[in-house]
Amino acid sequence: MSIISIIKKKCQKNELTDDEIKFFVKSTVDGCIDQCQIGAMLMALYLNDLTNDEISNMTTAMANSGTTLKFRSSAIIVDKHSTGGVGDKVSIPLVPALSAVQEDFIIPMVSGRGLEFTGGTLDKLESIPGYSAFSFDDQQLLAIGNNFGCFIVGSDDLSPADSILYKARDVTATVDNSGLIIASIISKKAAAGIKYLILDLKVGTASFFQSIDEAKTFGKQFVIVAKLMGIECRVLMTRMSAPIGNYIGNSLEILESINCLKGKGPSDLQTLLELIGGNLLEMTHKVSSVNEGRKRMAESLTNGTALEKFKQMLIELKVNEWIADELCYGNTTAILPMAKYEIEIKPLTSGYVNDIDGMTIAKVCNKLGAGRQFSNQEIDPAVGIRLLVKKGDHVEIDTVCMILYHNEIDLNESHLISLQKSIEIVNEIVEPEDILLGVIDCNQ
Amino acid sequence: MSIISIIKKKCQKNELTDDEIKFFVKSTVDGCIDQCQIGAMLMALYLNDLTNDEISNMTTAMANSGTTLKFRSSAIIVDKHSTGGVGDKVSIPLVPALSAVQEDFIIPMVSGRGLEFTGGTLDKLESIPGYSAFSFDDQQLLAIGNNFGCFIVGSDDLSPADSILYKARDVTATVDNSGLIIASIISKKAAAGIKYLILDLKVGTASFFQSIDEAKTFGKQFVIVAKLMGIECRVLMTRMSAPIGNYIGNSLEILESINCLKGKGPSDLQTLLELIGGNLLEMTHKVSSVNEGRKRMAESLTNGTALEKFKQMLIELKVNEWIADELCYGNTTAILPMAKYEIEIKPLTSGYVNDIDGMTIAKVCNKLGAGRQFSNQEIDPAVGIRLLVKKGDHVEIDTVCMILYHNEIDLNESHLISLQKSIEIVNEIVEPEDILLGVIDCNQ
Repeated sequence: MSIISIIKKKCQKNELTDDEIKFFVKSTVDGCIDQCQIGAMLMALYLNDLTNDEISNMTTAMANSGTTLKFRSSAIIVDKHSTGGVGDKVSIPLVPALSAVQEDFIIPMVSGRGLEFTGGTLDKLESIPGYSAFSFDDQQLLAIGNNFGCFIVGSDDLSPADSILYKARDVTATVDNSGLIIASIISKKAAAGIKYLILDLKVGTASFFQSIDEAKTFGKQFVIVAKLMGIECRVLMTRMSAPIGNYIGNSLEILESINCLKGKGPSDLQTLLELIGGNLLEMTHKVSSVNEGRKRMAESLTNGTALEKFKQMLIELKVNEWIADELCYGNTTAILPMAKYEIEIKPLTSGYVNDIDGMTIAKVCNKLGAGRQFSNQEIDPAVGIRLLVKKGDHVEIDTVCMILYHNEIDLNESHLISLQKSIEIVNEIVEPEDILLGVIDCNQ
Repeated sequence: MSIISIIKKKCQKNELTDDEIKFFVKSTVDGCIDQCQIGAMLMALYLNDLTNDEISNMTTAMANSGTTLKFRSSAIIVDKHSTGGVGDKVSIPLVPALSAVQEDFIIPMVSGRGLEFTGGTLDKLESIPGYSAFSFDDQQLLAIGNNFGCFIVGSDDLSPADSILYKARDVTATVDNSGLIIASIISKKAAAGIKYLILDLKVGTASFFQSIDEAKTFGKQFVIVAKLMGIECRVLMTRMSAPIGNYIGNSLEILESINCLKGKGPSDLQTLLELIGGNLLEMTHKVSSVNEGRKRMAESLTNGTALEKFKQMLIELKVNEWIADELCYGNTTAILPMAKYEIEIKPLTSGYVNDIDGMTIAKVCNKLGAGRQFSNQEIDPAVGIRLLVKKGDHVEIDTVCMILYHNEIDLNESHLISLQKSIEIVNEIVEPEDILLGVIDCNQ
């Protein structure tokens, strides 16, 4: 068996065997492969697509390519994954809230830095002084999981094949392929020992899937592969066009997460948190219905247990106790990095807000430093946007719709014009829409 | 412009612009590109194919990626290229013979080492003691070309983009793509300043093109791209199933080349030499017909001028004068490395030789050390095969059909069985076939 023959077979549209996929994945991790062979193989997989068998073989090989976490057997290991969207900070309040609700859950969330326009979950958390995502080894993670119940960190030890292949996909324009996406996500979850998983599958103009039909096809395939890996998975298809919540940008999203943990977050963010937590509680038979689960999630926000769990989680993750306390119960904005300048953005015309273009906002934030343009780039945690209006709101020509927070001495005028244009105004009243578009699980 | 956006564009089946192709080629040579991006780009080009414009833009960008040779303007710069076949040593006698016939030609042949089953032209020449293919810089090559008229060497300075991309294609299973092949060949020829070119396009079971129709499509595209690069090209489609000549293996093919230069070579080898030389003489209006050109080529073999030019060429290329003289006029096999052992191979049955499977012979020779299994591998110049029968010959069960020359103490029996099976015997008389299958030039 040789890498060349495996690449040739795939580029001739033949299905690869389990052994061939194992050989490719092993060679990738061992370094016994030319980098250009990784690129060629990814492009052949991308253009010729993976069969379901290839996806599950790839997932298994990747999951077994590094450390696997084995938590205490009495615990129920749960997690969520989102396909991502502008302003999506759901994981940050969700993990401590769910952990507060259900003490026999372990929620070992291994997340990533952002390669998209804005930062990822870890970038957001890293705007908290002292939080360092990649400073925990497997033994430490097992101890925190077993004794405390939850964490959100980064790890290069779980599915190292995924880390290598993800970086290669990112620079070879091979990110948006269902098979490769499924193998990437599930391999990391399987290596972390997850048994119950919610996939928050975003559908809409600002996400990978534009239509519900495409999303359904992907979701079904995802659930099947997860099941083959011993993971019970439910897919929530949720609407993604305008940003989630009112804040976009790393430290601003921490601020909003804390508001949410106090029960004072925006309704769309809280709805997503309730839906994901509620479903996980129902799937694991801790409640008899999703609605009951949602209620318990909501209670954790109002009774203070979720916020306290968040504070304790930060302390477990080596954040200074005083900082964690001040962040959660004191002067939050004194702890988080805040931008020097702010500019108000008003709409082009009066009327009803029909949509807010999250991608445009994300691109402006990226150019001002909130995200990376290349791998390992430093980001500015303070840069971001606060939205003051939501879809359906009526605005006048002088209504302040958003505030841009930035650190530029000479701000490029074009950014303001882009932001202004990102607010779509119509004359007719705009009806609110449900966030949840559909559910897919193993039984479908 | 970014490499990622260029890869994305090509993998979405959009045509790349000249600037995009230039950017890719320049990044490849400058090293401002991830190796995995080279692999992904090659696979996208391979699977989605190149348009004619993309091929000529790629060829130009590659030709301009390094040194270009500018010989004296009074000279006519000619060359040939063969798509390769087992036993194809035509270049070695052709270059000095044609140079002997036409003194105002410059034939600056820049050839390659073999990555296929048997050695390439340079590997064969390197079995001559003192010949070192890559030891000449551009100034030396210009001087030899201008003053002596011909050479056969290697060079990494001409079209360095091709050297990089060829190596990457070799390990990513992206060799056999028409567009990439055309860009690779013509970029090297354009950088060497070639104005008239014969492409010896092999057709048949032991070559890239199995059918004349496929070969024609490729040949026409090749001629068009060559013309765009200012090269007048004629394609000779020639039959390739059995090996060319009677010897296969590096030093054995030098021995046969010298026999040919003495007018004592096998008829198929001499026919190819005459055809290629004759066509180049006719294309450049040095003779009024290809047949007249063929006659002059044949004369150079019998009157000793071709052999003398070969000897002088070796001396120009730093081979010791005594060695060159002994090789050409003395005890040739005392100069060349010869194998320790030889084994006679007899047919499985009596009858007429219908075909000799060159690929099988090449694979056996490769395993015994005549070719490389990986890049930069040392090869054994002495290993090879001498054929004693040709297509159409009648053989008995005890006729010696071939002799294997090798250096193994314990020869694997399976090699002998493979060689025996490579001789296809039939009961009916086998008619001889023409070598030349067709001609394609600019006017078609």
